[in-house]
Amino acid sequence: MCEIYLEQRKVNVLEKLIDKIQSRESLMKLNTEQMYTLASEMREHIIDVTSKNGGHLASSLGAVELTIALHRVLRLPEDKLVWDVGHQSYAHKILTGRKDALYSLRRMDGECGFCDPCESKYDSYISGHTSTSLSLALGAACARDSLGEKYNVAAVIGDGALSGGLANEALNNIGQEQRRMLIVLNDNEMSISENVGAMSNYLTRARTSAGYVKSKKGIDSALEKIPRYGKDIARFVRNAKEHVKYLVSPGVIFEELGITYLGPIDGHDIRGMEELFRRAIKLDEPVLVHVVTKKGKGYEFAEKEPQKYHGVSAFDREEGVKDSNKETYSSVFGDEISRIARENERVCVITPAMMLGSGLSGFAKEFPNRFYDVGIAEAHAVTFAAGLAGCSMVPVVSLYSTFAQRAYDSIVHDVALSNQHVVFAIDRAGLVPGDGKTHQGIFDISFFSSLPNVKILSPCSFEELRKMLRYAVNECDGPVVVRYPRGGKEYIYESDDFVLTRADVIMEGASVTILSEGVSMPSVMGCAEILKKKGIECEVINARTIQPVDIEAVKKSVLKTGRLVCVEQVVRRGGLGENVTGLLNAMGVKADYISVSLDEFVTHGEYDEIEKRYAFDKDSIAERIEKEWFDGKEKA
Amino acid sequence: MCEIYLEQRKVNVLEKLIDKIQSRESLMKLNTEQMYTLASEMREHIIDVTSKNGGHLASSLGAVELTIALHRVLRLPEDKLVWDVGHQSYAHKILTGRKDALYSLRRMDGECGFCDPCESKYDSYISGHTSTSLSLALGAACARDSLGEKYNVAAVIGDGALSGGLANEALNNIGQEQRRMLIVLNDNEMSISENVGAMSNYLTRARTSAGYVKSKKGIDSALEKIPRYGKDIARFVRNAKEHVKYLVSPGVIFEELGITYLGPIDGHDIRGMEELFRRAIKLDEPVLVHVVTKKGKGYEFAEKEPQKYHGVSAFDREEGVKDSNKETYSSVFGDEISRIARENERVCVITPAMMLGSGLSGFAKEFPNRFYDVGIAEAHAVTFAAGLAGCSMVPVVSLYSTFAQRAYDSIVHDVALSNQHVVFAIDRAGLVPGDGKTHQGIFDISFFSSLPNVKILSPCSFEELRKMLRYAVNECDGPVVVRYPRGGKEYIYESDDFVLTRADVIMEGASVTILSEGVSMPSVMGCAEILKKKGIECEVINARTIQPVDIEAVKKSVLKTGRLVCVEQVVRRGGLGENVTGLLNAMGVKADYISVSLDEFVTHGEYDEIEKRYAFDKDSIAERIEKEWFDGKEKA
Repeated sequence: MCEIYLEQRKVNVLEKLIDKIQSRESLMKLNTEQMYTLASEMREHIIDVTSKNGGHLASSLGAVELTIALHRVLRLPEDKLVWDVGHQSYAHKILTGRKDALYSLRRMDGECGFCDPCESKYDSYISGHTSTSLSLALGAACARDSLGEKYNVAAVIGDGALSGGLANEALNNIGQEQRRMLIVLNDNEMSISENVGAMSNYLTRARTSAGYVKSKKGIDSALEKIPRYGKDIARFVRNAKEHVKYLVSPGVIFEELGITYLGPIDGHDIRGMEELFRRAIKLDEPVLVHVVTKKGKGYEFAEKEPQKYHGVSAFDREEGVKDSNKETYSSVFGDEISRIARENERVCVITPAMMLGSGLSGFAKEFPNRFYDVGIAEAHAVTFAAGLAGCSMVPVVSLYSTFAQRAYDSIVHDVALSNQHVVFAIDRAGLVPGDGKTHQGIFDISFFSSLPNVKILSPCSFEELRKMLRYAVNECDGPVVVRYPRGGKEYIYESDDFVLTRADVIMEGASVTILSEGVSMPSVMGCAEILKKKGIECEVINARTIQPVDIEAVKKSVLKTGRLVCVEQVVRRGGLGENVTGLLNAMGVKADYISVSLDEFVTHGEYDEIEKRYAFDKDSIAERIEKEWFDGKEKA
Repeated sequence: MCEIYLEQRKVNVLEKLIDKIQSRESLMKLNTEQMYTLASEMREHIIDVTSKNGGHLASSLGAVELTIALHRVLRLPEDKLVWDVGHQSYAHKILTGRKDALYSLRRMDGECGFCDPCESKYDSYISGHTSTSLSLALGAACARDSLGEKYNVAAVIGDGALSGGLANEALNNIGQEQRRMLIVLNDNEMSISENVGAMSNYLTRARTSAGYVKSKKGIDSALEKIPRYGKDIARFVRNAKEHVKYLVSPGVIFEELGITYLGPIDGHDIRGMEELFRRAIKLDEPVLVHVVTKKGKGYEFAEKEPQKYHGVSAFDREEGVKDSNKETYSSVFGDEISRIARENERVCVITPAMMLGSGLSGFAKEFPNRFYDVGIAEAHAVTFAAGLAGCSMVPVVSLYSTFAQRAYDSIVHDVALSNQHVVFAIDRAGLVPGDGKTHQGIFDISFFSSLPNVKILSPCSFEELRKMLRYAVNECDGPVVVRYPRGGKEYIYESDDFVLTRADVIMEGASVTILSEGVSMPSVMGCAEILKKKGIECEVINARTIQPVDIEAVKKSVLKTGRLVCVEQVVRRGGLGENVTGLLNAMGVKADYISVSLDEFVTHGEYDEIEKRYAFDKDSIAERIEKEWFDGKEKA
């Protein structure tokens, strides 16, 4: 039945259903065939948009029918629908008046790639990070009951997100609270990479035992019919565990936690899901409906390689996504850590479900016994690393900056406090263009550098990344962070070998000291060139080590120039600039100061647009320095 | 059997077994009776020590027999034993050469209240926060296998800690990795408060179904014997789920996650546990042994009120712990939030298992429908609050500063980013004497103030706490933090009503500006008095609002004095002082600067000792100011 939409592709462009669906009412009027036609048109639209703008393709394709069924059952926005990780929500955006707007996806001032109440009243909460939906939905359900409201609350959570600790904390509390709410487990057998972990194995068994649900009643009465022993056994079975659910329910874990389990059901069968969702929301308790979907559904390339089509850049839809051989900081990290591991058998690598994005496919293949994909579980990734480090291994934890936030206490309590030699390879540090405000890497300097014992290194070129990684693994002890940006923006210059706490003066000048690091170096050098032409001579320092900073180098320069600019693509509070001004003032060194940093969350867009918007580009920095310090004044 | 020790109390003081146990060998020589005598002596010792020094009494009493059994089975320190939350480890300390040293428990430079490899080679990892042991132990097991070692790895985790997300992430990964390791679930039916949550309910059912383990085989053969249908049904039952374990095992959740479950077993039966532990470590897979203990075991008062005897100050052992009616910041918070909730029906309170310590017993009693104890689950507490706030409630999340670290990403992603009106009542901010380095509240200013949208208020008296709470709940929107110290140290002065971003100049002076907040105010005022006598006039500013800081007030003062001191009981990096120096420099205001703050982790001891050790007392601050700026110079 759910294959109908494949036939419907050649629909007349002028009569598209997708353009007629303006409300839930119009959605309710569709017959089954029309619903699959609509699903097909929505897929076309999603593929078209992501091929032009990039985006999260495979997850969104998988959730089309699921979304239609939910929108038929729930009355939005009165009812609350919470999407876990909004990247599965493109179909939801289409059905809530954002079909055409979707062509601005991930563009500056356009649609964001996730859910956001600022964008639509149909989005109940911001969702960019995983595993948050169950806690949010329980909050909504408790608020409803407190305020005497009657609306429905539903959360859609992927199977990958169930490995996250936050989701488990929520399940524990949901089982306790027993509020009326619907949990849709969108099980596509994948997180971003293939799923790992015991929960995933468990769900696989649940999926493959679909038949049992139907036979539940059958067994019970069959047992009773057995002569002589029958009734006793039937009673025994019932008493043993309240119900025979232990025998027959594939959802025993959820049932044991006090959450009614329904399913599994085909996640591309709209009518079937609709019926099950209606049954579920009538129950006055938490109900989990286990929906099995196919990631990438309806686009052959994506069905075959869902991991590759999870998040994509613009691509030719007939040709599919082309493999890129372009070097990036991620690929350089992957290559170099493999090289290091060849020489040092104590090195192992841990990723929380980010193998591909972190450049670790090669390492995983070459060192399967020293590679740990722990699933979406950042805190565990770090405490697990502390466990390894305490027994003579040298663990390298590979984390995106924004996800490292999820492991903060593990970093404090299990690594920094006991000064464990754990290397943090922090990818996507600084501005992260497409994904927007939920995914910016703008807090890591603040939270890492507030911790005693932690060193932070920041390369501005691939070569520097290689040197720093090698230093971090082989020559450090205690926790070391190496942070590098998304992509491949480098500033290359002749430099000595990396030495901890030694900054490089890249350009000498007498008017202004500019201290910066990593991904900001190209803009800073560009700015220095601009100012040079105007007679303002900048002394540019590449910090290299952010913590502990080479304060003597900065002091020496500032004593000459009397002016300090610190450029860093992170929040001002707790950054390198604050550290340096505090230290200088404590040394009695005083200078005028400009902080080029952030005091707000950062939106999505192209990298160059974002850089410009938040004044990190060479022109903006130069203009600001000139305006604040040299406007109409003597240039000296 | 396990009651024997009660008889053994009147043992001759000169012949105590506890003094003869120097090694595992001597422990192995004991017969059963002697083991219970030893257990009894260990209890006596633990009660004696905690009645003198304070400490974690009830958990430690519960784990005595468990510890003896583990020490007989494992060969420490070659084998690795990981205690989750070291507060159950006093018996372990006694058996590892620290019996007499235990009299220095929680004293400056004495034994710490948790596990720490710096203290003993028998402590494999630092453990102060909960839910870390499974990740650490898995790390140890993986390291062992990587390096070709053969040692055993065991973790002891409480049932309360199982609600923590980190422990769930670890279980998921342990089920996947299938390493040889022993998990001892020390189930005392309590976390600190009574346990809540679905996992706890599940364990209660598991505990009460102990008989089923034995009848497993019986059922299987009984089914087969049933005429005609018997074999079919037996086969069906087996096929349905691999084994009949679903029918009979109380540990179905663990089994489903790929972890072999043994138990439940009486946690005061040494021989029984020993046998089960031996069986468990012989299996080449992860095995969980479910041990049921009584919190407070052997000390009547503690058995009756285990929550009250969880963590205690010194007490009279014959009389028991006396209720204190002394007002503290915690009790003032509890009283005031109840008062506010009476007037505002949208106010609700969330605690992650810290009702008593946070002063919330009264609120819980008066507003059961607006009080949520979510179990040990800090991240969920915060994201759940975001869910409530998004649906018109005003949630107040009550967190100890050190545990707020566990919710960092929930604070960033679910609260700050969407600017939800969530009030954070942060208790135990600043120095926390007894618990030591794992429990200091010294990072909250850094990590909260790095986040856009977040306001931070810091009261220096009960009255100010009341005003700020009221302001935070009724007059703010967006996230607001009110942070206050453990205990009841106040600085009281006549002040205007609290206004956001308005600091108070408490004392005027022309030589030095001292900016401070909250718990540091008494020392700061004391320091100002000392310096006054030496002719150094301090202008003292109580920041009140830490974020956004009243920079104009500071600027005005510094322009007069030319010298700035910032006193704050937190880490220097990211603190109030750094914020202020950065802002002043950017305004072109220059001053000499002293930061009285922290650059290291802080140990345990009495409050006054700690304050002195880290130079936060009035004399140390005064001495530092005088020495750095006025030594042998003109006082002006």
